[in-house]
Amino acid sequence: MPTVDRWLLPDGIEEVLPEEAARTEAARRQLLDLFSRWGYDLVITPHIEYLESLLTGSGHDLELQTFKMIDQMSGRMLGLRADITPQVARIDAHTLGAEGPSRLCYCGSVLHTLPRPLSTSRSLIQLGAELYGDASSASDIEVIALMLETLAASRVEGVHLDIGHVGIYRGLVEAAGLEGAVERALFNALQRKALDEVQELTSRIEQPALAAMLCSLAELSGGVEILERAHIMLDGAPEAILAALDELAEIAQVISQRYPKVPLYFDLAELRGYHYHTGVTFAAFVAGTGQSIAQGGRYDEIGRDFGRARPATGFSTDLRLLVACGEIDGGRRDHGIWAPHASQPGLHDKVMQLRQAGERVIVALPGQLEAEAVDFGCDRILHFANDGWQVKELHI
Amino acid sequence: MPTVDRWLLPDGIEEVLPEEAARTEAARRQLLDLFSRWGYDLVITPHIEYLESLLTGSGHDLELQTFKMIDQMSGRMLGLRADITPQVARIDAHTLGAEGPSRLCYCGSVLHTLPRPLSTSRSLIQLGAELYGDASSASDIEVIALMLETLAASRVEGVHLDIGHVGIYRGLVEAAGLEGAVERALFNALQRKALDEVQELTSRIEQPALAAMLCSLAELSGGVEILERAHIMLDGAPEAILAALDELAEIAQVISQRYPKVPLYFDLAELRGYHYHTGVTFAAFVAGTGQSIAQGGRYDEIGRDFGRARPATGFSTDLRLLVACGEIDGGRRDHGIWAPHASQPGLHDKVMQLRQAGERVIVALPGQLEAEAVDFGCDRILHFANDGWQVKELHI
Repeated sequence: MPTVDRWLLPDGIEEVLPEEAARTEAARRQLLDLFSRWGYDLVITPHIEYLESLLTGSGHDLELQTFKMIDQMSGRMLGLRADITPQVARIDAHTLGAEGPSRLCYCGSVLHTLPRPLSTSRSLIQLGAELYGDASSASDIEVIALMLETLAASRVEGVHLDIGHVGIYRGLVEAAGLEGAVERALFNALQRKALDEVQELTSRIEQPALAAMLCSLAELSGGVEILERAHIMLDGAPEAILAALDELAEIAQVISQRYPKVPLYFDLAELRGYHYHTGVTFAAFVAGTGQSIAQGGRYDEIGRDFGRARPATGFSTDLRLLVACGEIDGGRRDHGIWAPHASQPGLHDKVMQLRQAGERVIVALPGQLEAEAVDFGCDRILHFANDGWQVKELHI
Repeated sequence: MPTVDRWLLPDGIEEVLPEEAARTEAARRQLLDLFSRWGYDLVITPHIEYLESLLTGSGHDLELQTFKMIDQMSGRMLGLRADITPQVARIDAHTLGAEGPSRLCYCGSVLHTLPRPLSTSRSLIQLGAELYGDASSASDIEVIALMLETLAASRVEGVHLDIGHVGIYRGLVEAAGLEGAVERALFNALQRKALDEVQELTSRIEQPALAAMLCSLAELSGGVEILERAHIMLDGAPEAILAALDELAEIAQVISQRYPKVPLYFDLAELRGYHYHTGVTFAAFVAGTGQSIAQGGRYDEIGRDFGRARPATGFSTDLRLLVACGEIDGGRRDHGIWAPHASQPGLHDKVMQLRQAGERVIVALPGQLEAEAVDFGCDRILHFANDGWQVKELHI
């Protein structure tokens, strides 16, 4: 690479300059403090791990997203984390090993080999919270509420919430005995809401009632009223499917009561994270951004590969996306005190006192003049008067 | 890997559990706030970059330390950062492009292919501050002082400071016309203070005065008094070497005055970071830890490969090492309010009010009993009385 191009960054890999970095740090602190007030304990997971550990419980998608490298110490393949959720699940399942529910949160960089759909970035700061050990809707409700509070604290406006449940599709497919290529084709057709393909693919199912139910999923999207319609159209479905509908109804009821301004949208054919999730799934969107701004769901099986399957639900978001879409205050950048480069007695002590009191104090370097103070975000100067060093307003 | 071993982490790669994570987060905030009060602006640099960019201005050591992977988007080699300093230098040299001095700081994970000497970890949280654009000792003094303040804020006890100056050895070697294998052999011999090897290697130098000066470096280590001895033994050395001695004397005078309790140790044969540094170098040590706990120095040439050579000095440390060696308070872990799982009116509002007021409130999940409150770090409970929900002390 010629010298002049050494500053080029790979596509989708960004550096964050002071103004945005200050907002990012402020957001990080506010949100981790929010999580702490809700009882979620911070953990810090490794950036690299053995590839098998990193991909445990996740689908093929994550494997494609993960950068790989050789470990010189073990000769084995390492992965650079593309998702923190499986790592936190390992901490819950293996390292902490608590019997009752546990609440954990995290904030750290993840990297993707390729940008996700509708995105250009390959470098995210993943922030999230996970609740383990409870299989009830109470946990899903807590996690959805915390996700909405996260968006509110970031001052992201115009949020609407999409809710689905992979257990409904999964239960119908299992009951109908679909698997392999046919199941995958049906899955794809449903994602595209390609109704004639869905009808064609389900026409071979022996029980016409199940075929009709699978077809109906493509039409079961809309406001909370579709849950009523779903009860009618899925009447006679296996017990687990009716239980899933009840879970959705309970979540809808509590969330719409607590967050009446957040529009809810249900889609029973939405199978985001199907290979990973096991129950309720949800995603928050804002107008003008195609990808979700925060998302999550239930993934009860993830701990199994670490030796302990635990009920689990959680959400995650990208801190940099929150900073871009929200209105986070990074603090004033024009508030500070300029101290001259001088060796008069007492100057150093005064500077240290002011810093101790929380002030930002910039000490001039040799040759720097007071006129430069403003360029360094200072609105006051230290001035030597008869009675020692005094802070004075800077008059420009 | 068998299922039961999926939780294994590679050697030297650690996860950080809640108690230590809370202290690490507290340290991060305190220290970034300290840097901000000294006028250092936070930047966030990418975890991966094109390898040539990442290794710019650094030595062969960093290349060996850097994990490498292929970029699917460009087909080029990427590196996982093993040091943040060159990245921040790029931001100063290229992205920000300020004319006057600039102060930047950072905190983020770095990974090493192999542990550094005297360490077992390959995963560090590098925290540091850099001052660009000023070549005077005033900058070195500011950076050394900030490093000592960083250690003090982390409540690391028993710090002593080693100071060297690579310009002295470099100046003598250049004046003597030493290069290639002989120079490398001399460098190694001096590092080991192998005086007879040094004498043998310098015996071929044409000017006996320069040979004697190079030999004297091996003996010039100790308290501030060795700077006087150095002036005598290096009498007649090139101007740049005498200027380097003056810089050391100025730094010694100011630092010992401001930090009288920190023992200073000078070593003119200590060439830590020789291929990277260009002037003063320094490192802080504590008893019982062989490796330095924080270190830095001047590296004036680093920006050149990014299109602009700027004077530069800075220091860095490992946040996790600070947390291990210091006494950082991660906050109380037994302070919180337990709320029952109940649907009585007003409970949710009360919980949200308490959280808004900064309280940590854990809402019980279905089936959880008040007796579990202590296990979740709660010392109070929410209790329904005649006049609504009240916070009560928890009596065990």
